[in-house]
Amino acid sequence: MRDLTRHPELLSLNTATVRERWTLLQIIEGCARHGIRAIAPWRDQVGACGLEAAAKLIRTHGLRVNGYCRGGMFPAADLAGRAKAAEDNRRAVDEALALGAECLILVVGGLPPGSKDIAGARQQVRDGIAALLEYARPLGLKLAIEPLHPMYAADRACVNTLAQANDLCDALGVGVGVAVDIYHVWWDPALQTEIARAGRAGRILGFHVCDWLVPTTDLLLDRGMMGDGVIDIARIRGWVEAAGYGDCVEVEIFSAGNWWKRDPDEVLQVVRERYATVC
Amino acid sequence: MRDLTRHPELLSLNTATVRERWTLLQIIEGCARHGIRAIAPWRDQVGACGLEAAAKLIRTHGLRVNGYCRGGMFPAADLAGRAKAAEDNRRAVDEALALGAECLILVVGGLPPGSKDIAGARQQVRDGIAALLEYARPLGLKLAIEPLHPMYAADRACVNTLAQANDLCDALGVGVGVAVDIYHVWWDPALQTEIARAGRAGRILGFHVCDWLVPTTDLLLDRGMMGDGVIDIARIRGWVEAAGYGDCVEVEIFSAGNWWKRDPDEVLQVVRERYATVC
Repeated sequence: MRDLTRHPELLSLNTATVRERWTLLQIIEGCARHGIRAIAPWRDQVGACGLEAAAKLIRTHGLRVNGYCRGGMFPAADLAGRAKAAEDNRRAVDEALALGAECLILVVGGLPPGSKDIAGARQQVRDGIAALLEYARPLGLKLAIEPLHPMYAADRACVNTLAQANDLCDALGVGVGVAVDIYHVWWDPALQTEIARAGRAGRILGFHVCDWLVPTTDLLLDRGMMGDGVIDIARIRGWVEAAGYGDCVEVEIFSAGNWWKRDPDEVLQVVRERYATVC
Repeated sequence: MRDLTRHPELLSLNTATVRERWTLLQIIEGCARHGIRAIAPWRDQVGACGLEAAAKLIRTHGLRVNGYCRGGMFPAADLAGRAKAAEDNRRAVDEALALGAECLILVVGGLPPGSKDIAGARQQVRDGIAALLEYARPLGLKLAIEPLHPMYAADRACVNTLAQANDLCDALGVGVGVAVDIYHVWWDPALQTEIARAGRAGRILGFHVCDWLVPTTDLLLDRGMMGDGVIDIARIRGWVEAAGYGDCVEVEIFSAGNWWKRDPDEVLQVVRERYATVC
């Protein structure tokens, strides 16, 4: 297993971690100050900055963009909705390329409004990724399916296990892989097996960390800093590395009640420290 | 598939559904008023009423006790804690027998305090159920493992899929089965397969319903009334019945912000109506 203290360059900041108090410009400058060499920005932040300005800033600071957040949200109630989602996803691919991003993260979407048909939503997701892949593959941009915790099955993503994501990748072929976010998958009894399976196929495109707090007071915005919860992060990183993954460890913390309220410079300091000591 | 309007006797009330405003005595009398013929009571409510008094009340009203809530919570930080849990579980078996309950529901427990070892917790669960089975089997009481939603993996139950529960049953042999609570398993892509597997083994000991609300505002206490959420309840009931289950449909709703605040007579009326029209 890698000694992360010797690889500070592999720490990536998902910009959501400090999004409440900093703009993308401030985040990029903050990363420069703290020696963070990779980021995973969100579309709305890039939009607020302007795509070209963001791309230039990122180049100027020599940052890697290990992932772009996010495409997906495929299921819709009707064909017009699906077409709109498809178009928006192609734009996300274009933006990712403009930013020099290494993959587009897919949060695939949940049930369309009023629907109880999760099998149907899953079929829409499969069709949606297949279509997007036709667009992204010739452009050389990889798509990363991120399985989300089952508590988001209804409203955010109906791909809820790494097994499901692996099955999708098997079916869809070259150009699509997975992002392993421990917050979403840490509980899964099949996790080690499915990480190994993803690794054998060479399709682990990202490894995201934070922590599961006990108690968790909000389904979306109460993620913990690495080390403050119950996930054995180092063990899971060991599995990912044993499966051949040797790239970024991306920190992504949604925390309305705690980390989002703090001074982002303090947050980045803690992130760096925990990256080296806990992950 | 059964027409539930012709089987009002198979509606069971999990007493947690009206626990905030009624004692067990009031619940039993309420069930009598509303023509509900089966209940699944909780240990603390039985304790408050007194075990013998509760048993007598239940007999007097001719109620079935289709399940008793609950045993489990096996993992502990040390041997003394495990022994204490084991003893408490044997008492739960005794109480279930005294009440004439048809099975003891097991919510198996999560990580011991301070632990990040979910594999170890799962091993403790397996050992704990095996030991309890030695006690319960000769007494003729069945144990029902209830897989809980993955969002409870840390603090309530580290058995989080029906596949896991089936694997445990395969390993542990006669006397242990599963309770299928749709709230916990509705999202699982393997659900239909694992229900069929449980059915083939004749081990489906309970079928519990409520609904998943969008949004869900609390991890524990924001369950919905059947029909108010996104679960296709009738479809899952179809799978359970196709697997050979023909017994109670148990309604269990934890709802601090809504149903627990209402007049329990109103709640039971809505439960009866939704049982017939939605489930």
